[in-house]
Amino acid sequence: MTPGTAQKRWIVGVDLGGTNIVVGLVPIEGGEVMGFRTVPTDAQRGAKAVVDRIVAMVDEAITDVTASHGTTRDAVAGVGIGSPGPLDRKTGTVINTPNLGWRNFPLRDLVANQVKLPCTLDNDANCATYGEWWLGAGRGVSTLVGLTLGTGIGGGIVLNGEIYHGCSDVAGEIGHMTIDSNGRKCKCGNYGCLEQYASGPAIALRAVEGIEAGASTALVEMVDGRLDEITAATVYEATVQGDPYAAEVMKDTAKFLGAGVASIINILNPEMVVIAGGVTRAGDTLFEPLRAEVRRRAFRSAQECCRIVPALLPGTAGVAGAAAVFKRENYGAV
Amino acid sequence: MTPGTAQKRWIVGVDLGGTNIVVGLVPIEGGEVMGFRTVPTDAQRGAKAVVDRIVAMVDEAITDVTASHGTTRDAVAGVGIGSPGPLDRKTGTVINTPNLGWRNFPLRDLVANQVKLPCTLDNDANCATYGEWWLGAGRGVSTLVGLTLGTGIGGGIVLNGEIYHGCSDVAGEIGHMTIDSNGRKCKCGNYGCLEQYASGPAIALRAVEGIEAGASTALVEMVDGRLDEITAATVYEATVQGDPYAAEVMKDTAKFLGAGVASIINILNPEMVVIAGGVTRAGDTLFEPLRAEVRRRAFRSAQECCRIVPALLPGTAGVAGAAAVFKRENYGAV
Repeated sequence: MTPGTAQKRWIVGVDLGGTNIVVGLVPIEGGEVMGFRTVPTDAQRGAKAVVDRIVAMVDEAITDVTASHGTTRDAVAGVGIGSPGPLDRKTGTVINTPNLGWRNFPLRDLVANQVKLPCTLDNDANCATYGEWWLGAGRGVSTLVGLTLGTGIGGGIVLNGEIYHGCSDVAGEIGHMTIDSNGRKCKCGNYGCLEQYASGPAIALRAVEGIEAGASTALVEMVDGRLDEITAATVYEATVQGDPYAAEVMKDTAKFLGAGVASIINILNPEMVVIAGGVTRAGDTLFEPLRAEVRRRAFRSAQECCRIVPALLPGTAGVAGAAAVFKRENYGAV
Repeated sequence: MTPGTAQKRWIVGVDLGGTNIVVGLVPIEGGEVMGFRTVPTDAQRGAKAVVDRIVAMVDEAITDVTASHGTTRDAVAGVGIGSPGPLDRKTGTVINTPNLGWRNFPLRDLVANQVKLPCTLDNDANCATYGEWWLGAGRGVSTLVGLTLGTGIGGGIVLNGEIYHGCSDVAGEIGHMTIDSNGRKCKCGNYGCLEQYASGPAIALRAVEGIEAGASTALVEMVDGRLDEITAATVYEATVQGDPYAAEVMKDTAKFLGAGVASIINILNPEMVVIAGGVTRAGDTLFEPLRAEVRRRAFRSAQECCRIVPALLPGTAGVAGAAAVFKRENYGAV
């Protein structure tokens, strides 16, 4: 087999986040992520260091997987990159990402020039949703909305098997839908965004506010009285341990989330809403009151055709989706 | 020219509402609505009477227009019907419409059997939005969201020149997006729906509540103290007469609407939001604070590519859009 003529078997997916870079190879026809690896982003070391790190990880992952399959680098079609946005997909540029401190950064081409493979760029939340659609909870579904509850709330919309981008690649910012028009100020500048009620930090903040207002809970002991150490994970753990206050905070989260999901269902009437992120480990503690709240709020004929489910690919949806974007752009379909 | 072989020149559009039935002929290639007529729906006389009325109006409009153009009924391709929903487009059935008191009513085929022309059925708010896209404010725009502020708030979404219906024809219910999760109870069962703050009755109700709480305003005199006679139109008239309280109510309306429109812009990132309905007569009194509120709330790169404009086809958008749906379904494109 001569270089350049090998049958293409894999696409590399890169999921660049504010905390970690995750890389893996995805079979073009779909399947398990291979050569999976993750390292801290270390954004404070500068953009060049981040690009170098991505390039090194891509090269290592390719070497691992191709060697173990007795083939060469030519079996890799290219690299799909998911990055925090906003970004310009056409030019492959990250316009502005506070977490990384980048402005108008030509990420796609910088990576492509070093790895010497064609690359694509899309928003990380879009990629996570597209990954769930391609290989996770949303397989076979035509219309799907994805929400990732993390430091913020990322959102993505898949319509007829395509990521819906809108007219300036901003579409899907579901975390910045107002659910309380005079509510909490959001770092995006808006007020009462869903993200201010159901993201990880928002859950922790609401828990702390209740404690400061006099609530009695095991949470205080769990952090030795250091309330600023309470996180969404602490709240979840207290719920598992049977703490009624923590359960209440989780239920409130489900209600706020339910108001947002009901609006999405009334507006987009999707077949599925997929929810990802650490909080989904709470399982039915979250999903049962969430579904109940949606039943209370959304149009019946819209909720009847919509499943609300946890994501199936925690940790790899972003990689799978970034690869799916590459496949869509280079092969015409996923 | 023999019957059945005449070149098709027009599509009939029917806009069925709780108050009026509106009918007109639209040139297939687009243009002014012709043979326009409107009569009260008189829904209390029963479904059959409504169908008979639609059929009579369609026949009259066809006769008028074809006669004045020296052609025959064969020049009419068919009839597009817009109706309150929810409905099943595939079977042409109105599933449930409280305003008309119908349940599982096969409107499309009942009309088709009598007028002996092919018919299509779509949601009235979708049709109004599609009409603005085809022949009104949205000409040449790819992605557009329409809102009609009336007794309720109707919504429609046009993506890439197609009405977006979702998985059970419910999509576009933007009036039932929650903007205050613990807010006013809506007749749809949800809480804090946009419709409860910016529809005609909601505007009137907020005005009355303020008066009952002690606000001083010319509105009271305009209705001779009968506060239940205050409507959105009264509020608008008082604004024109320079009443500061009425202007405040209108500004609050713009702010609530702005919260909703900003969410839509963050989620769908459309090129245009078209706002129709009587309230838009308030012009800049409504649109200036509305645009300011959206600027305060929405992502910059999403609002920069989105124009927020009044509808251009008051009274005929529904007819034009119903005809456009017929054209789309029978000719493959509009």
